[in-house]
Amino acid sequence: MKIIMIGAGGAVGKTAYDELVQRHEVIAVGRNSGDIQADIEDMDSIRAMYAKVGQFDALVSAVGHGHFGPVMEMTSELFMQGINHKVLPQVNLVLEGVAHINDGGSFTLTSGVLNRDPIRGGSCAAAANGALDGFVLSAAVDMPRGIRINSVSPEVLEVSREQYDGFFRGHNHVSNEAVGLAYSKSVEGCLTGQVFTVDHG
Amino acid sequence: MKIIMIGAGGAVGKTAYDELVQRHEVIAVGRNSGDIQADIEDMDSIRAMYAKVGQFDALVSAVGHGHFGPVMEMTSELFMQGINHKVLPQVNLVLEGVAHINDGGSFTLTSGVLNRDPIRGGSCAAAANGALDGFVLSAAVDMPRGIRINSVSPEVLEVSREQYDGFFRGHNHVSNEAVGLAYSKSVEGCLTGQVFTVDHG
Repeated sequence: MKIIMIGAGGAVGKTAYDELVQRHEVIAVGRNSGDIQADIEDMDSIRAMYAKVGQFDALVSAVGHGHFGPVMEMTSELFMQGINHKVLPQVNLVLEGVAHINDGGSFTLTSGVLNRDPIRGGSCAAAANGALDGFVLSAAVDMPRGIRINSVSPEVLEVSREQYDGFFRGHNHVSNEAVGLAYSKSVEGCLTGQVFTVDHG
Repeated sequence: MKIIMIGAGGAVGKTAYDELVQRHEVIAVGRNSGDIQADIEDMDSIRAMYAKVGQFDALVSAVGHGHFGPVMEMTSELFMQGINHKVLPQVNLVLEGVAHINDGGSFTLTSGVLNRDPIRGGSCAAAANGALDGFVLSAAVDMPRGIRINSVSPEVLEVSREQYDGFFRGHNHVSNEAVGLAYSKSVEGCLTGQVFTVDHG
């Protein structure tokens, strides 16, 4: 398969990249790194990326960030960071990519644990994750030509434990391998409209 | 209790209004109707509404709309309709209202069935519902002073069957009473961070 991998340089993206590159042609796309450069917050840049890559079989996106902070201090603009930096770029990859993906191809987006197991200050990210999970569930029934779409929703990675500890107190940590397998299932499996949660392993 | 009810004129809002007005002072807020007028897509109008109402015990919001149409024909702008017309206005009611609500008060937002039981063309609405459900789950843990927050996520109302039939083929239809009870549970009950689904009754 020819797989476009957005965010291969991130901790979560690396799990997908390392798993899929063993068996497939993976084109890493990053803002400043990777095989191709693209800013997925810019629709023109997304279009240019698809034009460069040509037809492909799967797209995996593991990007996005949001605001962390308590509801009492959140503004409308801060809330929208999760939408603008995590939801919309990933949705736009699908909206624009559906014309370029091969029959039977797949889109895999990345949400996260916070809309099922919240932490303090996580409501912006939880909303973003919920939007992504809802989107893939419903977009799946629209997809033509056997195209599939799922999200992967991982717990905190073991490799990110130090970075996030204190914020995710009591949360489980999951291995790169466990998260990589979820991406493998989405890309190489048969299911669609699924949220592949990774809470263990 | 003194309850602010946004969207009492809509089919879903009416279920909450009819249930809660039996026991409480309900202030109906509409764009052009109700006891007080406000445009909740305008933060200044939200602020003016809270200034007029003063301290209150509960806010119920049953408003919002999104784009319906297949993913293959969706643009970024169409996708954002659900965020801009359903998610952000309801989130803004919370962000702005948390300073004005009494101790032990509650916010109740309205999502919907499409992020658990999708229909064709419903991915914009499903994303909006997912964002709202994720938001209340996580915002609940931030809330000070015993303030609670939930969403009500109803199936298609029996009274709306004719309007939506054909789009929601095979979906169950629920009574005004069943949906009204979910709002009652959110406002008059004790739970927080919940999505009260109404699929039967």
